[in-house]
Amino acid sequence: MLIAESKSMLFEAPLPLQSGASIHGYSLSYETYGTLNADKSNAVLICHALNASHHVAGVYADQPHNTGWWDNMIGPGKSLDTDQFFVIGVNNLGSCFGSTGPHANPDTGRVYGADFPVVTVEDWVNAQARLLDALGIEQLAAVMGGSLGGMQALSWTLQYPERVKHAVVVASAPNLNAENIAFNEVARRAIVTDPDFHDGHFYEHGVVPKRGLRIARMIGHITYLSDDVMNEKFGRELREAVTHNATGYKYSTQEVEFQIESYLRYQGDKFSEYFDANTYLLITRALDYFDPARAFGGDLSKALARATCKFLLVSFSTDWRFSPARSREMVKALLDNRRDVSYAEIDAPHGHDAFLLDDARYLNVVRSYFDNMAHALNEGGAA
Amino acid sequence: MLIAESKSMLFEAPLPLQSGASIHGYSLSYETYGTLNADKSNAVLICHALNASHHVAGVYADQPHNTGWWDNMIGPGKSLDTDQFFVIGVNNLGSCFGSTGPHANPDTGRVYGADFPVVTVEDWVNAQARLLDALGIEQLAAVMGGSLGGMQALSWTLQYPERVKHAVVVASAPNLNAENIAFNEVARRAIVTDPDFHDGHFYEHGVVPKRGLRIARMIGHITYLSDDVMNEKFGRELREAVTHNATGYKYSTQEVEFQIESYLRYQGDKFSEYFDANTYLLITRALDYFDPARAFGGDLSKALARATCKFLLVSFSTDWRFSPARSREMVKALLDNRRDVSYAEIDAPHGHDAFLLDDARYLNVVRSYFDNMAHALNEGGAA
Repeated sequence: MLIAESKSMLFEAPLPLQSGASIHGYSLSYETYGTLNADKSNAVLICHALNASHHVAGVYADQPHNTGWWDNMIGPGKSLDTDQFFVIGVNNLGSCFGSTGPHANPDTGRVYGADFPVVTVEDWVNAQARLLDALGIEQLAAVMGGSLGGMQALSWTLQYPERVKHAVVVASAPNLNAENIAFNEVARRAIVTDPDFHDGHFYEHGVVPKRGLRIARMIGHITYLSDDVMNEKFGRELREAVTHNATGYKYSTQEVEFQIESYLRYQGDKFSEYFDANTYLLITRALDYFDPARAFGGDLSKALARATCKFLLVSFSTDWRFSPARSREMVKALLDNRRDVSYAEIDAPHGHDAFLLDDARYLNVVRSYFDNMAHALNEGGAA
Repeated sequence: MLIAESKSMLFEAPLPLQSGASIHGYSLSYETYGTLNADKSNAVLICHALNASHHVAGVYADQPHNTGWWDNMIGPGKSLDTDQFFVIGVNNLGSCFGSTGPHANPDTGRVYGADFPVVTVEDWVNAQARLLDALGIEQLAAVMGGSLGGMQALSWTLQYPERVKHAVVVASAPNLNAENIAFNEVARRAIVTDPDFHDGHFYEHGVVPKRGLRIARMIGHITYLSDDVMNEKFGRELREAVTHNATGYKYSTQEVEFQIESYLRYQGDKFSEYFDANTYLLITRALDYFDPARAFGGDLSKALARATCKFLLVSFSTDWRFSPARSREMVKALLDNRRDVSYAEIDAPHGHDAFLLDDARYLNVVRSYFDNMAHALNEGGAA
């Protein structure tokens, strides 16, 4: 098993943010796997989604069960082979897994709460670029991410076209649609209207808006799963059938009755124990705001004209959060610009979550793509 | 305009409920439109969904803007023509629009709160049957409902097959699937975990769990609308574009930014002003529990064998709450039993909400069905 080590890098210079604000003296947590080659041409940056971190692959020496969130994809001999590539995981600014965020600045101890500035996908990419500068990496062999991570990968190709040779954009979208924003908004309202939220300064009150976080996570989970997989996994199964009445129902409005309820409550409870409420607001807002076509009157083809790298896009048939149609919009816009695009639409039952799961076709598509890159790298050719 | 009059009927005898409990001394609010014919063969019962009442059509004399919720469907010369049919609207037991419910027993003043018994679709149908008894109606020309109302219409054909000649089941399903239950559960958790809920006895505390009701309604609204109609109505439009920055964004995690957010907040606020939180729990549980196939090992065809009436089923192409596939399950089960079934799948963009909206094809399908019935009634033949 790959042994991971969490590192941290402090950035003293102010980072100008899209909102007009700026942040300075922040640190980013990151991990690296594999070895950077002599000409520094084999680096792959992994961008994370809402509930993930820089701990992408492997386990920590002292935490043998704390496995990276994309460990099934990344590691020695895996689809993204760390024997071939130097892989970098980074925790985004504003997150709650080590980097500076609303909960704390690990270097100054400052607790921002609601005063943490709004950060965007573009801001994250700028922060990631500074990390690469510090690591001495001029150009990425590839940038890769799923969901919100895919948005960052796409944004890399627009903000730093010369620094990216390949982008792997999985289960993503060129922006949120109204329904996506709507779900985010309900989750945010649940958090913000929780009396324990205290306008984002709950840390000072020694409380956590757990009620709101639970509701937010339950909503999220519904949108991550497909209807099909929910029916298959849970259906209308009761948690505990009462056998002394004909229907098996308890007839209660509050007790857990169906398995799906039990599952959602568990997911909500678990999440509320570790996730930061302000981070939830920030990250969902970053999702809402991402819209590279906005500055081009909604014309995605024009927006993506800046991208010059090669692309692999992957979508999943039952993903209703970021449906295949959204990936096809990106594919079309790239093809309009005569870009080199590979696209795989994977027939998978698991909905949006599929991008994190073991699906042989999916993992093989990514493997082939990186194998070709590795081959070209080893040959010294242009991948 | 049809003038409606809200009436109330008191039932002294205990009504045994599916849970094993019973309720007595309750009253039901109802309205009637049109004239019952001499042989009492032209009565049509309308069953309501979550947020509706016995006020189905017309306006009240003293409230000329308070229009019935299905007034576009029901009235003189409309699809369900009150010049031909005697139409009955009834508010269900446990609702908050006049009939006895958790908020109050209008006859005794008793406030039940969380002590109100759990009621099911089957219980509602039994209560409706008693109302018909009191009105002297032995057999319905038709029972009709949309969504949860459609479940009641279906249940009528199973509980009282000899009392129904036709059932019109619109935008409904033979049970909730896991995703439907999941959305209900999140809404319930939002209400129950609101500190103002007080275990359902919030009336005594002089408060209303408005935060929870708002979240519940916002979630509901998302599931009532189609993705398409949300994108068309709201898309990524900003509520108020700030013109002094390049993106037009305010960069705020809490302020309303997008139109869809403004719409959802408004819907949530409005709902929380008038809807009863305990009723919300009860009605969503009634939805969860409804499952006529359950007693037949999940075999819907066996379950529907009891139904002997004729059926019209209608579904809407973009309804993802109760998709056309769910209506087709019922059609198939009825055809397996060689029942007389008409089925219309209406290509409409509005999602689940379509059943309440003006769609010419939809309204014409229902009109034709009832016209045929009226013709048969007037001829004295068997419709």
